[in-house]
Amino acid sequence: MLKAAINAELLKDSIAALAVIIDEVRFKISREGIFVKAVDPANVAMGIFELRAEAFEEYNADECEIGIDLNKISDLLGITEKNDTVRIELDENSQKLLIDVGGLSYTLSLLDPSTIRAEPRVPQLELPVKVVLNGLDLRRAVKASEKISDHMLMGVSEDTFYMEAKGDTDQVRLEMGRDQLIDLKSGDACSLFSLDYLSDIVKPVNKANEVTLSLGRDFPILIDFEIANGAGKVSYLLAPRIESD
Amino acid sequence: MLKAAINAELLKDSIAALAVIIDEVRFKISREGIFVKAVDPANVAMGIFELRAEAFEEYNADECEIGIDLNKISDLLGITEKNDTVRIELDENSQKLLIDVGGLSYTLSLLDPSTIRAEPRVPQLELPVKVVLNGLDLRRAVKASEKISDHMLMGVSEDTFYMEAKGDTDQVRLEMGRDQLIDLKSGDACSLFSLDYLSDIVKPVNKANEVTLSLGRDFPILIDFEIANGAGKVSYLLAPRIESD
Amino acid sequence: MLKAAINAELLKDSIAALAVIIDEVRFKISREGIFVKAVDPANVAMGIFELRAEAFEEYNADECEIGIDLNKISDLLGITEKNDTVRIELDENSQKLLIDVGGLSYTLSLLDPSTIRAEPRVPQLELPVKVVLNGLDLRRAVKASEKISDHMLMGVSEDTFYMEAKGDTDQVRLEMGRDQLIDLKSGDACSLFSLDYLSDIVKPVNKANEVTLSLGRDFPILIDFEIANGAGKVSYLLAPRIESD
Repeated sequence: MLKAAINAELLKDSIAALAVIIDEVRFKISREGIFVKAVDPANVAMGIFELRAEAFEEYNADECEIGIDLNKISDLLGITEKNDTVRIELDENSQKLLIDVGGLSYTLSLLDPSTIRAEPRVPQLELPVKVVLNGLDLRRAVKASEKISDHMLMGVSEDTFYMEAKGDTDQVRLEMGRDQLIDLKSGDACSLFSLDYLSDIVKPVNKANEVTLSLGRDFPILIDFEIANGAGKVSYLLAPRIESD
Repeated sequence: MLKAAINAELLKDSIAALAVIIDEVRFKISREGIFVKAVDPANVAMGIFELRAEAFEEYNADECEIGIDLNKISDLLGITEKNDTVRIELDENSQKLLIDVGGLSYTLSLLDPSTIRAEPRVPQLELPVKVVLNGLDLRRAVKASEKISDHMLMGVSEDTFYMEAKGDTDQVRLEMGRDQLIDLKSGDACSLFSLDYLSDIVKPVNKANEVTLSLGRDFPILIDFEIANGAGKVSYLLAPRIESD
Repeated sequence: MLKAAINAELLKDSIAALAVIIDEVRFKISREGIFVKAVDPANVAMGIFELRAEAFEEYNADECEIGIDLNKISDLLGITEKNDTVRIELDENSQKLLIDVGGLSYTLSLLDPSTIRAEPRVPQLELPVKVVLNGLDLRRAVKASEKISDHMLMGVSEDTFYMEAKGDTDQVRLEMGRDQLIDLKSGDACSLFSLDYLSDIVKPVNKANEVTLSLGRDFPILIDFEIANGAGKVSYLLAPRIESD
């Protein structure tokens, strides 16, 4: 069972953060909120998503699992206004989601969750380094790096966090000292990541005042930030690229 | 004879409302104003347009008929500013239209009206139902329906006007009660229309505070709204689609 | 040697004005500023560009010549904010340009100037007519003409400057009298120019309050305007087209 109401803008941002990873996902619904874990088709990035009950204007739910095509919801949310309220109701018998926005009622057929790839196991990683920075700084470094290369190095050297991309002839590097960061737990960290993935991930990150990066040496990166004014959270786990040459 | 001056924005909106139906049209010019009736190439939609003398800053005309390629005028109006005044003068000898905007003088060759499809006969229809609503509401329903289907049902059931689109698996429906409408004359009405046409028609409708829909059962729809602050009027008559399924 | 700092918006506008002509250019650097002369690949348009030391927030330079791919710099400047300061330093040993914007450091490989087409000789022309007008007026005439033709006539007839384009059936003409111009030195001038080139040139001109055109009969046109609040100057010399038919 699910019957809920939520601000349209907030739902749009949440769906956008998930759509970065994959289109068809299983929503785990419970009394506490909505939870998703999903892996991208190439097994490079994982998204862990939660939107807790308090993010909603109204929220009533029993435990259940539904399959959703995020593209369809994004399409529908495209015509909402910033301050619209979206009402959602699950019809379990017909496996349909009823969505109501300002008098417009959508009936959306759900996907059979069993046809969607199972929820991944989240690996237990010891990531020794933590960097907390503004989402805009991360985005700026990613956008600058895209002009030059298709992968980017992220690491920490003593009290400095750096992001660096090298092209055939050119290079770009952003260094941020402890005083430019919101927080830093220093240690041994330096890994290479695909800019294809980072530039997608960075889109929703953009709105986050605070993004936490957890890093190691040639290890995956964990990118965490809050959504819905703290009533939700998105984490991306991105596998490193192994430097050739 | 025609010699007139008109606000650029107003002329742009008028031309845009006409261009929805067809590119080459016959303008019937008289002392009272400019009048156009045109049918789209597939004979599905008809546009009936009038821009009366009082819409103009200056207006002097004798009865005449000219052929115009609306694309050319739209192109030229594209570079005008909102508050520009457009001066128009017809040179009947050379069959050219002289258009002056802020010092820029265009000389536009007219089309021979006899090469343009004749003005259609407007059918006399008894459309029992009338719905008056805000142009934005109509537009929102059309935009939502486009995501799901290529045709849309419009009808009235007792005191409720509804618009509905059904896709293979999903559905969208907008219901508006008497209190959400500007006016309603209820009756038997339910017809299916092509969203291709509706989404074009809805573009100029968007700016109208008040749109009147006249409907019947499996009958054409008549969509009326004012332009030029009441000094002009556009009507679209759109043929219904016959539901196959 | 070069070590300089400049406002990002100002540098972006300067690069954009140059990029109209060609992508790879030789920058002549001296104590007085940065100077470029370049010809487009088809030898139709020449750009003469200067950005004097006073345009910079800081400027230290010895005489040198470097080769730059303007596309790369435009790309990088694309992510700067309006009020950012761009710091530039030339590393002559490695032939690299170090560019720093808000903590982001770019290392840009320079081109070997000897691989770039040599600086053209600027022809000495006697252009009897001078027209000074607002950049926006020039742009408006060019944009209107593009709708109709691929070349435009520019000339002076007594106290009137005119720009005119003729299509197969239509025509557009902008006339500006002495009172609508900022200044006019009248004389014999009437030449035809390619709108392909003019519409590129007119993009940076757009921001100029004052543009000086120097003209003759079937002669090139010289289009001059200031950049960087008077601390720089761009001149375009555009060859005329010979009217056929």
